[in-house]
Amino acid sequence: MYNLLKGKRGIIFGALDSNSIAWKVAESAHAEGATFVLTNAPIAMRMGEINELAEKTGSEIIPADVTKLEDIENLIEKSVEILGGKIDFVLHSIGMSVNVRKKIHYTDNNYDFTHKGFDISALSFHKVMQVLYKKDAMAEWGSIVALTYMAAQRVFPDYNDMADNKAYLESIARSFGYFFGRDHKVRVNTISQSPTATTAGNGVKGFSGFINYAEKMSPLGNATAQECADYTITLFSDLTKKVTLQNLFHDGGFSNMGVSNEIMAAFEDQE
Amino acid sequence: MYNLLKGKRGIIFGALDSNSIAWKVAESAHAEGATFVLTNAPIAMRMGEINELAEKTGSEIIPADVTKLEDIENLIEKSVEILGGKIDFVLHSIGMSVNVRKKIHYTDNNYDFTHKGFDISALSFHKVMQVLYKKDAMAEWGSIVALTYMAAQRVFPDYNDMADNKAYLESIARSFGYFFGRDHKVRVNTISQSPTATTAGNGVKGFSGFINYAEKMSPLGNATAQECADYTITLFSDLTKKVTLQNLFHDGGFSNMGVSNEIMAAFEDQE
Amino acid sequence: MYNLLKGKRGIIFGALDSNSIAWKVAESAHAEGATFVLTNAPIAMRMGEINELAEKTGSEIIPADVTKLEDIENLIEKSVEILGGKIDFVLHSIGMSVNVRKKIHYTDNNYDFTHKGFDISALSFHKVMQVLYKKDAMAEWGSIVALTYMAAQRVFPDYNDMADNKAYLESIARSFGYFFGRDHKVRVNTISQSPTATTAGNGVKGFSGFINYAEKMSPLGNATAQECADYTITLFSDLTKKVTLQNLFHDGGFSNMGVSNEIMAAFEDQE
Amino acid sequence: MYNLLKGKRGIIFGALDSNSIAWKVAESAHAEGATFVLTNAPIAMRMGEINELAEKTGSEIIPADVTKLEDIENLIEKSVEILGGKIDFVLHSIGMSVNVRKKIHYTDNNYDFTHKGFDISALSFHKVMQVLYKKDAMAEWGSIVALTYMAAQRVFPDYNDMADNKAYLESIARSFGYFFGRDHKVRVNTISQSPTATTAGNGVKGFSGFINYAEKMSPLGNATAQECADYTITLFSDLTKKVTLQNLFHDGGFSNMGVSNEIMAAFEDQE
Repeated sequence: MYNLLKGKRGIIFGALDSNSIAWKVAESAHAEGATFVLTNAPIAMRMGEINELAEKTGSEIIPADVTKLEDIENLIEKSVEILGGKIDFVLHSIGMSVNVRKKIHYTDNNYDFTHKGFDISALSFHKVMQVLYKKDAMAEWGSIVALTYMAAQRVFPDYNDMADNKAYLESIARSFGYFFGRDHKVRVNTISQSPTATTAGNGVKGFSGFINYAEKMSPLGNATAQECADYTITLFSDLTKKVTLQNLFHDGGFSNMGVSNEIMAAFEDQE
Repeated sequence: MYNLLKGKRGIIFGALDSNSIAWKVAESAHAEGATFVLTNAPIAMRMGEINELAEKTGSEIIPADVTKLEDIENLIEKSVEILGGKIDFVLHSIGMSVNVRKKIHYTDNNYDFTHKGFDISALSFHKVMQVLYKKDAMAEWGSIVALTYMAAQRVFPDYNDMADNKAYLESIARSFGYFFGRDHKVRVNTISQSPTATTAGNGVKGFSGFINYAEKMSPLGNATAQECADYTITLFSDLTKKVTLQNLFHDGGFSNMGVSNEIMAAFEDQE
Repeated sequence: MYNLLKGKRGIIFGALDSNSIAWKVAESAHAEGATFVLTNAPIAMRMGEINELAEKTGSEIIPADVTKLEDIENLIEKSVEILGGKIDFVLHSIGMSVNVRKKIHYTDNNYDFTHKGFDISALSFHKVMQVLYKKDAMAEWGSIVALTYMAAQRVFPDYNDMADNKAYLESIARSFGYFFGRDHKVRVNTISQSPTATTAGNGVKGFSGFINYAEKMSPLGNATAQECADYTITLFSDLTKKVTLQNLFHDGGFSNMGVSNEIMAAFEDQE
Repeated sequence: MYNLLKGKRGIIFGALDSNSIAWKVAESAHAEGATFVLTNAPIAMRMGEINELAEKTGSEIIPADVTKLEDIENLIEKSVEILGGKIDFVLHSIGMSVNVRKKIHYTDNNYDFTHKGFDISALSFHKVMQVLYKKDAMAEWGSIVALTYMAAQRVFPDYNDMADNKAYLESIARSFGYFFGRDHKVRVNTISQSPTATTAGNGVKGFSGFINYAEKMSPLGNATAQECADYTITLFSDLTKKVTLQNLFHDGGFSNMGVSNEIMAAFEDQE
């Protein structure tokens, strides 16, 4: 550990259980000297594991339904109060598609479900930033990061409407990032992570087969949740102050592969 | 004229008045030998100019609110009936942001308005394709095109939530385009057009100044609505059968410019 | 056929034999009403098949070594003379890697060979445009197209230094395209084509296996040489006047795929 | 300082004087606990400033002409010897265009000069990696970074053939990065930095005007040489092990801007 976040204050969304990337970020941020508030949807709180994380990292938990502005306002006000100053870093690690959960095919999507998933997975990022911006709650040179996936750029057939939600999320990062940078010197980026065996990720159809495929395609193999946390720490640190509006691939090289020898081999074998 | 669309049947969304790109596409498609149905939101019909276009091109008009599945279903059923067969081409030229109309700043967006604009501008593209797909209403090697704007990739501060809507729209083109291609040999693309002085475009703040800027940045100058129609015709023709899932810039080169000499000159003058 | 190139004059580089994309472009351009000059490296002329194409399309052949400015100057002067006016379209379909031919691995490249392949495959595009530009030999709204491959953006391990050459070629299209557009209203684009079973393509190791892989990844399947010719015709036509500085994927959708169901299936089978 | 590079061994190319990014990287790497060898072209050594840097950081200097394999071989062998083990990080900060130096316009490039600039600016990156790879001189999870510029993706008219060289350099990063990752767990990335007022950068025509333009376009302003060094340190650290084949923009957000309010304002003023 390097004291990279010494004295920094943060808010971490989406630490569901110890498989979550947000969980690993919380552990690493703590080890690097940060203090932060943990938050999750009230419904996710019932599962209780987050209390363990809060204890371990000396953090308070403030539940918030990210589709509700008043919840987000409450979260941010209280966080500033609890942490004793403006926020230096925010992690948005939130995503949910009702169409995926209900195993509805993309060509048969239910639009009420689409709107709901959009509200939670994409628009919530705008809402969080809008509240932070209006309340002037971010410290100068603060850093906001949202987790995303490459389905925003390329087709992964089973990713369903989450692909489109992630495209919207990444666009928010640029659109809001401009105003947040210009007006408050805050940077906004997304990390496009390898498929990761989190509890949420495992809900996607054929996910373990896909993880295997991505592993063989990536010259360095898939990035783990812990490695993603390490990378996130660098983006929260003072060493990356001028990185903004970017979508950053953290994926062992997958995103720039056309085909690997290993995939070709697997493929040729069964011709 | 070249008879590029001889015998082809289409549906054209969004011909508001003679400044509309969709209007020019309709005129050009007619000249190239196509027959088609024109459609617009019921509210837009009142303005009446579209009747002139319908007459000129021998087309019927079927009003449809693109946020309503039943309207889209009715539109597509009737179109197939009227045109006497499956659809060969579809133009989606629809976009509206309530936040823009109400001059609400991006950092102050009203989320009911955001949802409404999203439903009309982005999700409508999924709805139209879902109905076409389920009804098996597209002919093999048919072509679906939606108009978009580069704010989906890069920041144009006054484009507001339309930027994010266009990012979502382009993602739908990829996501649905995969299934439409795989299952029905239909291609789906978006055209990312220069800023164009349409009636809709003029609603965006500082738009004429921006058109001027884009003109000076683009080595060939901005693309006009008529030029966009010409390009769209090539994408509806049989000469582009294997182009799919693409976002195609039609912008006189703007999208790949970092800076032009003309912009630098203008800029240096006022140092 | 549509008379899309009626009265247009062109120069076509790289028609080696009837499998060549350039060969198909020549046939299609002829059918669409164009007249043109065919050109190839003197060494390629010996194979003689090009005479058949010249006869069929009523074209003259002017050999030119594209690494030599004097050859290119002679080619362009004579072409303008023979065709009776400025040039409307140019196809650059030239590529050769000595490292590939000699089966030298990318991590063991011989730099004399790299320079030679670079000169032929990439720099030749600059040379051709420089001569056209200096001699003011392109007609207004003329169109210059070079063929490229997606290895310029993503890793295809066996493509060797041709990947890097294509990246350079695509950069030339943008860099020179700016000046050609600004000064002469000429557009410059590259077409990034599916792997194609041309005589040249077949030299790449494991190529047929790769074509198979690409076929399964692409929702519309690989694009053929003839389909590429069709697409090229649209870019030479007057319907695409404002498309410039673009790299246009013509690949059945491959470029925007993360993974297809068919690839995943093949892959899962052999877990 | 955080001890991010404690115990790591490196080679730093291109520290010309105290304005150089490589100079700042050397200072920061030293402060973070690394030991390294400094290297430069023999011709650049004459200027002598690098001795000051060597002294300050306790480094040895090994001159090497990067166009010569034997020089690179000597450099790498001696570096491993001096540093006492395999190399953990390499910075490639090398670029030179004779066409730029001689003020030759891009449309009038001299091809001997183009080849020379290509050899130094682009191919040198392949040569350095080829020697490192063949000698198995990189430690596992080592990190190789080359500096590049966004002219590789978009047109900056005065950047001349350096734009094309940088496109080739970035392609090498992907192509070689695949093999280096697969075989030795080494990552390879490029950093695409804001225009920076280095001694080299200042050679480009109209450079200070352009820096001003970029400053106004970027929501966070241009990134400085020191900020670039900070960012580079994160890429050499153990916190970014799975980032590879990427081109990373470090530019205050410039790369994802279409236009900023400040640029539009400056622009509108002089309408």
